[in-house]
Amino acid sequence: MDTVSRIESALADSVLLAEAAGAPPRLAAAMRHAVFPRGARVRPRLVLAVAGACGDDRPALAAAAAAAVELLHCASLVHDDMPCFDDADTRRGKPSVHRAFGAPLALLAGDALIVLAFQALARAAATAPERLAAVMTVIGDGVGVPFGIVAGQAWECEPRADLSEYQRQKTGALFAAATMAGAAAAGLEPEPWRLLGERLGEAYQVADDLRDAVGDAAELGKPVGRDAALGRPNAALACGVEGALARLRGLADAAIAAIPPGPGAPGLGALIQAEMHRLLPAKLTQKAA
Amino acid sequence: MDTVSRIESALADSVLLAEAAGAPPRLAAAMRHAVFPRGARVRPRLVLAVAGACGDDRPALAAAAAAAVELLHCASLVHDDMPCFDDADTRRGKPSVHRAFGAPLALLAGDALIVLAFQALARAAATAPERLAAVMTVIGDGVGVPFGIVAGQAWECEPRADLSEYQRQKTGALFAAATMAGAAAAGLEPEPWRLLGERLGEAYQVADDLRDAVGDAAELGKPVGRDAALGRPNAALACGVEGALARLRGLADAAIAAIPPGPGAPGLGALIQAEMHRLLPAKLTQKAA
Repeated sequence: MDTVSRIESALADSVLLAEAAGAPPRLAAAMRHAVFPRGARVRPRLVLAVAGACGDDRPALAAAAAAAVELLHCASLVHDDMPCFDDADTRRGKPSVHRAFGAPLALLAGDALIVLAFQALARAAATAPERLAAVMTVIGDGVGVPFGIVAGQAWECEPRADLSEYQRQKTGALFAAATMAGAAAAGLEPEPWRLLGERLGEAYQVADDLRDAVGDAAELGKPVGRDAALGRPNAALACGVEGALARLRGLADAAIAAIPPGPGAPGLGALIQAEMHRLLPAKLTQKAA
Repeated sequence: MDTVSRIESALADSVLLAEAAGAPPRLAAAMRHAVFPRGARVRPRLVLAVAGACGDDRPALAAAAAAAVELLHCASLVHDDMPCFDDADTRRGKPSVHRAFGAPLALLAGDALIVLAFQALARAAATAPERLAAVMTVIGDGVGVPFGIVAGQAWECEPRADLSEYQRQKTGALFAAATMAGAAAAGLEPEPWRLLGERLGEAYQVADDLRDAVGDAAELGKPVGRDAALGRPNAALACGVEGALARLRGLADAAIAAIPPGPGAPGLGALIQAEMHRLLPAKLTQKAA
């Protein structure tokens, strides 16, 4: 099965759990709305890419880890879009969950997706029970306290915030969880894979800034120009498009240099180069090539 | 260490994780506010009571399971109290989290507490890695979809809801998770412990209805008479105080009859009797004795 199919199939299996007879149907519909149709699936593809580079000898656990990371990412989007944060009307080209289902169900769908990530992991652990704690720890730490994406989001509620800490937690933490979970699912020590994830997270942030600054709303499925409108920090606004592109290239190179040595390293490096290219808005891909 | 100390110490260790240097301090404060000072800790005491009746040969895992169940319960209170649901001003005798810290931090503190439950479990699994998946599955299923407490809460957003299904999911599911997690942490098959938890959950619901109907706000640390004011179903309003007390006694007996046989069964039965007594408002304990 190819990477996309493995991810979509693991996510579909998870969301099906919400649709059992006797479960509240609108909650299940809100969860499905949050997870499908797919976005770029950047993080779960990273889980599987690293698992593949590490031998991927427990593919069911790797697929569940990939699904868990994506479910947690979807949960964070649902909650971040809510009126008390971004109050976003659209996401992935359609109404945000709270616009489609109301704030109460958006709150609960996010909660249920967080729990579902761990339910999916636990169910997949039968094939490799001794690896579950490591996979669960790196994924939990990438989302929760002290330095996961929920902590990152919480910096928006602090009187004083360190911008680089904010971005590292809000975006980088789940990328680091993705690389480490891929390694842990394949039975390797996860820590050496952290730096790769952190650098990719930073690169992704710059790519996201570029898309917000010069991208096309129809292509992205969400409004553009939000950072300028809301006065949020944005690398493309701060250093110009050329400066941000140069920074992105530098971060991609640094990420590839951070891949722990092994037989899978060259293939993973090539995959990451291709991925970085894919993340750019169409009108910039010629320049970045 | 006695039961209360084991629970408080496991919870304190978990919440400390949020207070690491470099983490957002107001998020950590909101989480601490949600977990301390302690409420009745009914569910984690049930985890440890069942673990004890099953031999409790992995006490660190049992304590982490107890803490996880309580963290998830606290998370659900934080989110249920928010303006889009109950809009409650007070909880456990002090301001609710959203009143003290605002809705954005209440949303994030609830999210972080959900994740923290699984982080705590993963960290405790070193002593019994082969038991982690079972403990995690029963706890995850008690909270998430299709029939956990988040699903229970979601029935408030459905056009048509089955009241008994709503109550079983909203309250009973986490009680069943507590009894099953206690058994799983002690290495036993969890399923035979489900019925005990479900019956205790139902008994707890009746006791809660009694406290809302005839309790004292200062004793409970939350407003009373809310069910009558909001037109919510309440056993004491439906069957009178005597009727509700009789129902509570019947459910307690049925719960005790559901304890799977074993050397720990008589002790657990006595503990449950004492617990049921404790749950009643002070002015009713003479009648219930």
